Amino acid sequence: MKGAKDGAPKMSAQSQSISLPSALKGAARIVDATLDAVLPKPHGLYARVQEAMRYATFAGGKRLRPFLVLNSAKLFGVPEARAARAAAAIEVLHTYSLVHDDLPCMDDDALRRGRATTHIAFDEMTAVLAGDGLLTLAFEILAGVETHPSGEVRSALVLRLAEAAGSNGMIGGQMIDMQAAGNAFGADEIVLLQRLKTGQLFEFACEAGAILGEAKKEDRDRLRSYARDMGLVFQITDDLLDVTGTEAKTGKAVGKDKDQGKATLVSILGIDGARNEAEKLARRAAATLAPYGNFAPELCALPLYLLKRDS
Amino acid sequence: MKGAKDGAPKMSAQSQSISLPSALKGAARIVDATLDAVLPKPHGLYARVQEAMRYATFAGGKRLRPFLVLNSAKLFGVPEARAARAAAAIEVLHTYSLVHDDLPCMDDDALRRGRATTHIAFDEMTAVLAGDGLLTLAFEILAGVETHPSGEVRSALVLRLAEAAGSNGMIGGQMIDMQAAGNAFGADEIVLLQRLKTGQLFEFACEAGAILGEAKKEDRDRLRSYARDMGLVFQITDDLLDVTGTEAKTGKAVGKDKDQGKATLVSILGIDGARNEAEKLARRAAATLAPYGNFAPELCALPLYLLKRDS
Repeated sequence: MKGAKDGAPKMSAQSQSISLPSALKGAARIVDATLDAVLPKPHGLYARVQEAMRYATFAGGKRLRPFLVLNSAKLFGVPEARAARAAAAIEVLHTYSLVHDDLPCMDDDALRRGRATTHIAFDEMTAVLAGDGLLTLAFEILAGVETHPSGEVRSALVLRLAEAAGSNGMIGGQMIDMQAAGNAFGADEIVLLQRLKTGQLFEFACEAGAILGEAKKEDRDRLRSYARDMGLVFQITDDLLDVTGTEAKTGKAVGKDKDQGKATLVSILGIDGARNEAEKLARRAAATLAPYGNFAPELCALPLYLLKRDS
Repeated sequence: MKGAKDGAPKMSAQSQSISLPSALKGAARIVDATLDAVLPKPHGLYARVQEAMRYATFAGGKRLRPFLVLNSAKLFGVPEARAARAAAAIEVLHTYSLVHDDLPCMDDDALRRGRATTHIAFDEMTAVLAGDGLLTLAFEILAGVETHPSGEVRSALVLRLAEAAGSNGMIGGQMIDMQAAGNAFGADEIVLLQRLKTGQLFEFACEAGAILGEAKKEDRDRLRSYARDMGLVFQITDDLLDVTGTEAKTGKAVGKDKDQGKATLVSILGIDGARNEAEKLARRAAATLAPYGNFAPELCALPLYLLKRDS
């Protein structure tokens, strides 16, 4: 681990003054170039499904998960090209989950990030297949030798992504969410739902850098612990935006949770209570990274940045 | 490669007299035990999706792909427990493709193998998620260390399965198939469709044994060549059953291709022409395995057995 030799200095001035928006944009540029390279060029009799895969992927996403991969990989001296491939794998997997979640039989959303969802822009059948194609592509990318020369590392990435995204992870979370409307969930159930539905993939995004860097188990655990807290901050601030945000800023319908009778941490804790909880978690997330000194300024700054987001 | 040292004897009496039905049943018993072990036990708030994954998987399938994996693995002395895991991975991936193909926005089938399809027995949303869960599980199984001690082998399995099942493989074939109704496809387009939609997975099933056995490239190519011919025999005889079979025997609706205005090799070549083509391919498939002498009697017997099937 780079930086450990310097002891464990307090969060540096650098980490306080970092510009998160430009750091996020930088990560997006890197991963977008890799995504363009790994997504199949639409061709032949089945071009339509590959067009839909690209349409869904290049939709103005924040590329938050790629940002996490790239910055956790930096901690362990991983070459950027390898980290960018792992980041691309996680982003196409995330994209598949959005395409399927938006389907009429799930959330039935016509709009995402201010743009027609995939089954509206194409059709439902193509959207199901495009999601399937993106999910499959995620594993193809990770298993490719360009991602890492060691087969052990590539297999570890595949295994952990499959666990994080499978029926005991993200898919399980989506199943709970689909049953949440009208269900009197308490805070425990909601935290479980979020840890599965969005948290597992955040955890893997952070852990991927450590796996690529063949780091120690304690590094993997530390980055997952950071991601667990950061992911909840992300979710709580997302729920706050659903209550206090505007459609123009967020690019999606607001007030949906209430309309669907879904409990959230905001509906249970109240706006102030939820905001306090998010602040506590954000501070704890940043503190988790203290052993890396000032070598993870972007990761340290992210949770605090999320607290202030308006989209 | 076992058997090569014996030269390349002609197909033995043993391979002529083998009982394919009991060989298929034996493979099914082995893979079913592994499937039961690797499929998550339904639990917690998301038990429903895991119940649907099991419902779809244990539906009386022929386990033809597992049969191919187990018998190709035998050629290279692969321990049965490893081959059974690869077989289980391919079978859950095949199952996911059936669950999604049956959805209302795709083939809209209520019945498969004489039983309610997953979205009928559960609901559409659960069926989408169960398919996603099965697809993800396929890669989790292959990347698990129990499948093979070498990370290189596990990564190779993941990579080849992802290629075979992705948008340039099985998903591409399904996309073509969904656009086939009313389209004046010729024999070339139909062969391409089938090689993608069903052939790619057959090819991987046969190649998986060679990958697990760390066999030479020529063995991998030979088994894929066999699978390519055998897969077309499977498809032509399936199309013949759609014309000449009964619902009671096949366990599914017949006459669907014609009703949907879909061209098949049977509609283009006629019943006799298609049957002749299938016989030619079956003989060529068996001949491809001649270098393995009498060490692959089940694989040699399969294409000829398929010619006579009535379900």
